[in-house]
Amino acid sequence: MKKLTVNAKTKTYDITIKEGLIAEISDYIQHDKKKFLITNDTLEKLYPDLVNNFENKIVIKDGEEYKNFETFEFIINELLKRKIERKDLIIALGGGVVGDLAGFAAASVLRGVNFVQIPTTLLAQVDSSVGGKTGFNTKYGKNLIGAFYQPESVLIDTNFLKTLPSREIKTGLGEVIKYSFIEKKCSEDRSIYLSDYLDKADPNSLNFKEIIFRSAALKASVVSKDEKEAGLRAVLNFGHTFAHSIETITNYKKYTHGEAVAMGMKLAFELSYNLNFIDKEYFDYAFNLIDKFELAPIYKIECDKDEYINIMKSDKKVANSKIRIVLPIARGEVKIFDDIDENKIKKVL
Amino acid sequence: MKKLTVNAKTKTYDITIKEGLIAEISDYIQHDKKKFLITNDTLEKLYPDLVNNFENKIVIKDGEEYKNFETFEFIINELLKRKIERKDLIIALGGGVVGDLAGFAAASVLRGVNFVQIPTTLLAQVDSSVGGKTGFNTKYGKNLIGAFYQPESVLIDTNFLKTLPSREIKTGLGEVIKYSFIEKKCSEDRSIYLSDYLDKADPNSLNFKEIIFRSAALKASVVSKDEKEAGLRAVLNFGHTFAHSIETITNYKKYTHGEAVAMGMKLAFELSYNLNFIDKEYFDYAFNLIDKFELAPIYKIECDKDEYINIMKSDKKVANSKIRIVLPIARGEVKIFDDIDENKIKKVL
Repeated sequence: MKKLTVNAKTKTYDITIKEGLIAEISDYIQHDKKKFLITNDTLEKLYPDLVNNFENKIVIKDGEEYKNFETFEFIINELLKRKIERKDLIIALGGGVVGDLAGFAAASVLRGVNFVQIPTTLLAQVDSSVGGKTGFNTKYGKNLIGAFYQPESVLIDTNFLKTLPSREIKTGLGEVIKYSFIEKKCSEDRSIYLSDYLDKADPNSLNFKEIIFRSAALKASVVSKDEKEAGLRAVLNFGHTFAHSIETITNYKKYTHGEAVAMGMKLAFELSYNLNFIDKEYFDYAFNLIDKFELAPIYKIECDKDEYINIMKSDKKVANSKIRIVLPIARGEVKIFDDIDENKIKKVL
Repeated sequence: MKKLTVNAKTKTYDITIKEGLIAEISDYIQHDKKKFLITNDTLEKLYPDLVNNFENKIVIKDGEEYKNFETFEFIINELLKRKIERKDLIIALGGGVVGDLAGFAAASVLRGVNFVQIPTTLLAQVDSSVGGKTGFNTKYGKNLIGAFYQPESVLIDTNFLKTLPSREIKTGLGEVIKYSFIEKKCSEDRSIYLSDYLDKADPNSLNFKEIIFRSAALKASVVSKDEKEAGLRAVLNFGHTFAHSIETITNYKKYTHGEAVAMGMKLAFELSYNLNFIDKEYFDYAFNLIDKFELAPIYKIECDKDEYINIMKSDKKVANSKIRIVLPIARGEVKIFDDIDENKIKKVL
């Protein structure tokens, strides 16, 4: 078992990582609360005993395309129909879609009830379940509505990864590799750096407990310093400004989030290299690492470049209609720019 | 001009009360931000110059029945369509419906942008604009979804009351009188007590600046001590547990909020008297004060009493399916009870 503490300004809570944790779930959840499980239909099929153990369960459809207003309204109405009270507990069992929707529902219903995250995908375990970002997508872009709302705890069971399709493992690795490129910005604690591990790792036999621990620790370190994205937290968006455009243009269907992030990181490295922020050696190292895990065989998509740029501008992190973009400047180091020439950006797309 | 400061845990901000403030509005709002005005069609007709002064305006329909998911989604989509950014400012110009919806939109869009409240009804000026409660109604009850989210400032112009229908003035007075019944719980500062003023006041010539200042000051005092309704803030719900049932049963159409609160307070006084918490003298005083302002000629509605009780139980403030109710125990003093016999409650309905 590995344990981490997130010291967010609004709440301090633990992340517990353990193979087989779910079999002992009752040790980790308070018994005196009425519980509302929110999960999706795929997990309901894969883990019927776990899901049916909960009297109050709300099952949504699996898929990023359901992370929208309609599903949010459905969840809120189900919670209210079953008379949820302020002291009750929402349990989010699923990937990022379930976690983000359930988290925002927890933040909003009755103006806030407690919730626990049980992330079941690698992407959610290393990224979306940590840090309190909740919300959903609109036709104008990804996660443009939501709340910063921290869970009571995050419970991670690596056994869930055994039933996860390999493409879903890869999408998680996209975020894991991202941490290796920003790790020096996240923490000074070398023992949690990911590049040391990934450089030597065999993509076919990964130690997920280690990967999840280091990724979550790096993210927790950033969130502890900057919960609401006032400054530092923006480095976590490395690769994401491009990725949001890629996902929006392809309607969230063609590429997984991790693939889009891996593609976005390649674009960021190419842009940085073109701008002379990094040398050829680091550029090659980055591309080789991303390719070793086969995350982004293609990274330039066919599209209207003005549309691409416009979507980049509509990103939440934007200030004064400028494109704010995180670019690599050295090993494990990135910097936030908002004055990059649009033509230079267009050139790499 | 009168000025108050709200010291909420998450934000400190001012409430400014001034006749004619709106003519000098530009002195009170930061110039360097992009502004999004949210208002309703009644105000657009009454104050076209003021409303059209804003390049980005979002106009919703006037009425409590529009305080719902659909209008919330409309506002969010309008903000996103016009490319709102995190550093922009939302201005809520209107009554409680506009303020609550715009406030929750401000809390949620891009996970939070700043907003200013310009309440235009007496009810909003004395109550809903102060304290950061935002949200909207669902078919399961009033304000069952939302956020605690404090504005940047609250700007109150008493001139708006000149175009307010008299029934709307009365609904505001319902909350004003409520403060007089709970004032000792709110603050020890006698200079802001409302009963001193109301006992002597002529209902036909009220000093609204004084009424608004005292009401807002009493509420601000409570919010400063308990932003998120952990304890003390619940006293503000005096009359409201009954009122929510009355409004739900009558579909928010037959009675205004203030009327329902006035009816709820009469029921609370009757219940308290039946339970021997208060004497006949205070009971008569309370009924006379409410009647002096002609706020609740009727206070018992025809309905299914079990349904009435069930709706009281679904109130957000409820714990363990018990009815939590605020009852008067002495002049200006109330207490929160959650062990009142349901049959005693049914008897007064």
